[in-house]
Amino acid sequence: MTKTAMSTVDKALGLLRHFSVQSPELGLSELSRLAGYDKTTTLRCLTALERNGFVEQDAQSRKYRLGLAPINLAQIREQSFPVQSVIKRYLDELADALGETAHATLITGDALITAAISEPDRALRVYVDPSAELPAHATASGIAITAFSSKDKQDAVVNRQDHAAFTKHTPQNAGALKKLLAECRATGVSHAHGTFEDDVIGTAAPIFGPAGTPIGAIAVAAVSMRMTPDLQNRIDQALRIAAQAITRDLGGTLPGPDQPLKETLG
Amino acid sequence: MTKTAMSTVDKALGLLRHFSVQSPELGLSELSRLAGYDKTTTLRCLTALERNGFVEQDAQSRKYRLGLAPINLAQIREQSFPVQSVIKRYLDELADALGETAHATLITGDALITAAISEPDRALRVYVDPSAELPAHATASGIAITAFSSKDKQDAVVNRQDHAAFTKHTPQNAGALKKLLAECRATGVSHAHGTFEDDVIGTAAPIFGPAGTPIGAIAVAAVSMRMTPDLQNRIDQALRIAAQAITRDLGGTLPGPDQPLKETLG
Repeated sequence: MTKTAMSTVDKALGLLRHFSVQSPELGLSELSRLAGYDKTTTLRCLTALERNGFVEQDAQSRKYRLGLAPINLAQIREQSFPVQSVIKRYLDELADALGETAHATLITGDALITAAISEPDRALRVYVDPSAELPAHATASGIAITAFSSKDKQDAVVNRQDHAAFTKHTPQNAGALKKLLAECRATGVSHAHGTFEDDVIGTAAPIFGPAGTPIGAIAVAAVSMRMTPDLQNRIDQALRIAAQAITRDLGGTLPGPDQPLKETLG
Repeated sequence: MTKTAMSTVDKALGLLRHFSVQSPELGLSELSRLAGYDKTTTLRCLTALERNGFVEQDAQSRKYRLGLAPINLAQIREQSFPVQSVIKRYLDELADALGETAHATLITGDALITAAISEPDRALRVYVDPSAELPAHATASGIAITAFSSKDKQDAVVNRQDHAAFTKHTPQNAGALKKLLAECRATGVSHAHGTFEDDVIGTAAPIFGPAGTPIGAIAVAAVSMRMTPDLQNRIDQALRIAAQAITRDLGGTLPGPDQPLKETLG
């Protein structure tokens, strides 16, 4: 097998990322355009994905959608190494106690994915899209994960030249980002005031793996007009406690003494 | 991209099938042996799968396990085209009402996968392994799906020369299988008395897609020593009703008048 051959696996798996809650069905031309592959390559990838249950093709429209194989793999993963179910319990408690949407982001391969969401039982609530990629510079979860990552990873986020502006509040320069990262390291939580979506205040706390490095973050996405200093304090405190408990439940360890988090959380 | 190149996608996705609840972590050599690929190919597939979050490698043991990407894809699929959550509601009701384990099997690509399981709230219950492949000839679900499939697919199941014997009750000849298929077509449910696992009685009913062909089956796996004629009747009836409701909820249609199911269920 040549190196060129191998990259077809990346191509096929990459196609799956284009399906979202907003665009759950995509045609061959659309997928080919989105992925930047020629149609022949796209079709061959899709055929292999379909054979293995990762996509389905609608008999009428001929469009593709995600298949059922991931549902089965997710079950096997969860029965062997529960992560989503462990986190979901805490998110349910957070959403219930705080009355705002709680969600979890995990680092997997090269990407940040939404692993679980829990919405509060009230009419006005923040909708978190599980297919949305959370940009590191514009979201509380991204800042929380980056703040405790290696210096190299921090620099990569801080020094990017093309920080996309999602709202007029999205931090766009290195100085503003450095300040956010330092604040998160000092307090154990990060805050995002309408930096990704208008009228949403995000608060996040990092979750750590066995090596004491971040494996993800849990966050609360609150309706900004409901926010009060008291609610923000309660969110901060609840997230710190839940993130620490999740880290422990998943067999992780808090970062070493060179990182100030232990004192902050302890 | 050549034809040979494409098959690497199948190879990579095929590797994922070797992870099970019993063997959640596998080393490179083990995977290479199980899959029948050379180590170089296996490693290249694993590296691409890891890059995309489909497997993770343990930092200490160097073994691989399923990653988190499927959890995210499963969420997106469920939010766009809910199947698991629709079926799960009915399974919960079945497990609760009947006091036995209910589970659902769906056809995806070339395989039958377990899409959802609901266990009753009592100490002695049948454990259904989500990673186990349900053989068509030896399980109630397999018989229910096959009974309403095309003549070709039925013949392929009936006329196989190597029907594996899972227990001493596994049907092994074409005559016995034909009888089971005919019974299921006549009654809308299939029964498996210890044919896959000793001491378990399986009952299953097919679920149909938009084209009126089976897309899967729901089943009840009961502890055989608890079975009574009355309980079996209740299971049969509850499964028929639930399977029909799921077919309707998922936008499917019952098979046409050439198939006797409509009268049976109607």
